[in-house]
Amino acid sequence: MTSNKIKNIITSNSILVADKVNQLNQEDKKVISLHIGEPDFNTPPDIISNTIQALNNNHTKYSSVPGVLKLRTEIANSLEMENFNNISYKNIMISNGAKQSIYNIFQVICNPEDEIIFPAPFWVSFPESIKLAGAKPIVVPSKPNFQLDLELIQNAITTKTKAILINSPNNPTGAVYNKEDLKELVNIAQKNDLYIISDEAYEFLTYDNIVNTPIATIAPQYSDKIITIRTFSKKYCMTGFRIGFMVASKKITAASTKFQGHVTGNNCLFSQFGALAALQMDNTIINKMKAEFQNRRDLAYSLFSQIFECEKPDGAFYLFPKVDNYFNHKIKNSLELANYILEQANVALLPGSAFGVENYLRVSFANSTQNIEQAFINIKSLLDQR
Amino acid sequence: MTSNKIKNIITSNSILVADKVNQLNQEDKKVISLHIGEPDFNTPPDIISNTIQALNNNHTKYSSVPGVLKLRTEIANSLEMENFNNISYKNIMISNGAKQSIYNIFQVICNPEDEIIFPAPFWVSFPESIKLAGAKPIVVPSKPNFQLDLELIQNAITTKTKAILINSPNNPTGAVYNKEDLKELVNIAQKNDLYIISDEAYEFLTYDNIVNTPIATIAPQYSDKIITIRTFSKKYCMTGFRIGFMVASKKITAASTKFQGHVTGNNCLFSQFGALAALQMDNTIINKMKAEFQNRRDLAYSLFSQIFECEKPDGAFYLFPKVDNYFNHKIKNSLELANYILEQANVALLPGSAFGVENYLRVSFANSTQNIEQAFINIKSLLDQR
Repeated sequence: MTSNKIKNIITSNSILVADKVNQLNQEDKKVISLHIGEPDFNTPPDIISNTIQALNNNHTKYSSVPGVLKLRTEIANSLEMENFNNISYKNIMISNGAKQSIYNIFQVICNPEDEIIFPAPFWVSFPESIKLAGAKPIVVPSKPNFQLDLELIQNAITTKTKAILINSPNNPTGAVYNKEDLKELVNIAQKNDLYIISDEAYEFLTYDNIVNTPIATIAPQYSDKIITIRTFSKKYCMTGFRIGFMVASKKITAASTKFQGHVTGNNCLFSQFGALAALQMDNTIINKMKAEFQNRRDLAYSLFSQIFECEKPDGAFYLFPKVDNYFNHKIKNSLELANYILEQANVALLPGSAFGVENYLRVSFANSTQNIEQAFINIKSLLDQR
Repeated sequence: MTSNKIKNIITSNSILVADKVNQLNQEDKKVISLHIGEPDFNTPPDIISNTIQALNNNHTKYSSVPGVLKLRTEIANSLEMENFNNISYKNIMISNGAKQSIYNIFQVICNPEDEIIFPAPFWVSFPESIKLAGAKPIVVPSKPNFQLDLELIQNAITTKTKAILINSPNNPTGAVYNKEDLKELVNIAQKNDLYIISDEAYEFLTYDNIVNTPIATIAPQYSDKIITIRTFSKKYCMTGFRIGFMVASKKITAASTKFQGHVTGNNCLFSQFGALAALQMDNTIINKMKAEFQNRRDLAYSLFSQIFECEKPDGAFYLFPKVDNYFNHKIKNSLELANYILEQANVALLPGSAFGVENYLRVSFANSTQNIEQAFINIKSLLDQR
């Protein structure tokens, strides 16, 4: 009844777990939600008030498909400050979240059977978004510390390869790719005439003064083939505003605009005014939020590394511990372990399988220190019983 | 460089004309915008204030992919009042405008080479949206009065036909399909096991007590194969909110939700609270707007029918006059005539070619009576010179 294309994709486990948690919450089981991929802070007041002002000023009509000119211009200006090369509003297209930017780019560059290489663990929608463009997801493992395995990437390249897709700071691992590896990745891409697609949803969120390098800034000579994807969601606590954007060559931006014009048209107009206010804020609130995330990262790591084998994340707000030592004849994989912990310890986590790897769980620390501590106590006491 | 899929679609003329008008306005040419497809009224205050309240209440997080449960439930309730059969929130999915609902449905039901039959004139994104699903647009002419030509539709059916797509009240013609034809259309679809997709963006807006019949309500026995697409944009002057929705079987709704979960995720959350307020308003404002549109329709028709051969529209806010008697060796088609009128009379109209038919222009009367009168004077005086 439905198309093969739709039969061929799966609903992400993250959505399925969220649905289950909602159901349990309705039954008054108090679940601690460490499965969630959004900041728990409120949207900063300046953003709220500018959005309200836009509504009061009747900015409620259609706007242009790639986004409000002033917002695109301000985004370009802010990227110029980050050393993006030769950039203007013509390189920027706004979408309904970074998710749509990711969906768009594969539609725009891929013909059927084209291949997209990306490392596992990966963000849940990558393979489905690629398949929806008729292209083939080619997954290569990361190194044990979740850094890029450049040799495996190099070996995966075929005549069908169209792009290499990366995500740093990484969801789910929290890894921040090191700059030397990114330089080498550009060399590999350039040698093979491949696009590089860089999902930078968490670009602002790194710890211990570690710096995330936007790959577009280290390869100005190759910027026409680098596509950067960003969002206001995580940095400005604006997930519900649905404002993400793509940074690409003028040609790719124009092609994406042509496409988006028939898919969703323009984005919510007053949301875009909220995003404009976000760019005009000073950094006080963001820095405070980052400091709080650093505390939580330190706490979550110090606790969960007592019971799980765990890398210390350098960015984003997730731990991604290895948990297969808790598997047995009853609990055979990460989904079953996540379900066991949800049902018995009232803590929601996401299974590694949602991210393309078994043997792991994703623990979000976008939650209060109190909840992180309580979650740890619940899980430890459950697993100690065994 | 870009995919064949993207090369294969065109940017709608409506967007190209809008860009040109923006440019002329920046040059201080005062263009009268009769090309626009949205009400010129402000969004009603209750909708604005509920959206603001949602922002003040921090409803700024992710929500569920098919939309906020309460909104879906209220939509289902309102459709039940319209005699939709056996309907609940499980039949409703919210999207970023009706445009996305239309994009979604072809992705969900079409395999490559499937055919979708629809009458010309047609809304600009229909053929592109169908092609983007890998399917084939099969266009059949309407009758001269813009009603369905059922014989032509019947004759266009092949073993590849997947659906018949209709749009009533029609953009661009203003035709409201008559109920007997819709009944016969259901028979044709049922006999051939085809989906019916009904774009009802203008369902509320009919004149002279003419009633538009939602096709789903006359065929309860076939409701599993009827997909209705609606929007808050036109009825509630909420184009910039980007809230459209699809009404379909639970199975189609679930498949669309799986798809949309990887395309855009959820919709702007506070926009959805605005839509909720729209459903809870009494009809005073809507009725006032309808009365004003009726005045404008009467005015626009009485004026433009003096210079153009023109059907009197029963719904929506467009005239669609036949204009080929103004073609000559210099102005050979509707696009050239629209450009001529834009440049020489400062009035923006859309060419028939944007809607799949030459020899016509679309005149929007979603504008003040003063502007409609001035536009008429400008155009008449230009065309009288010839």
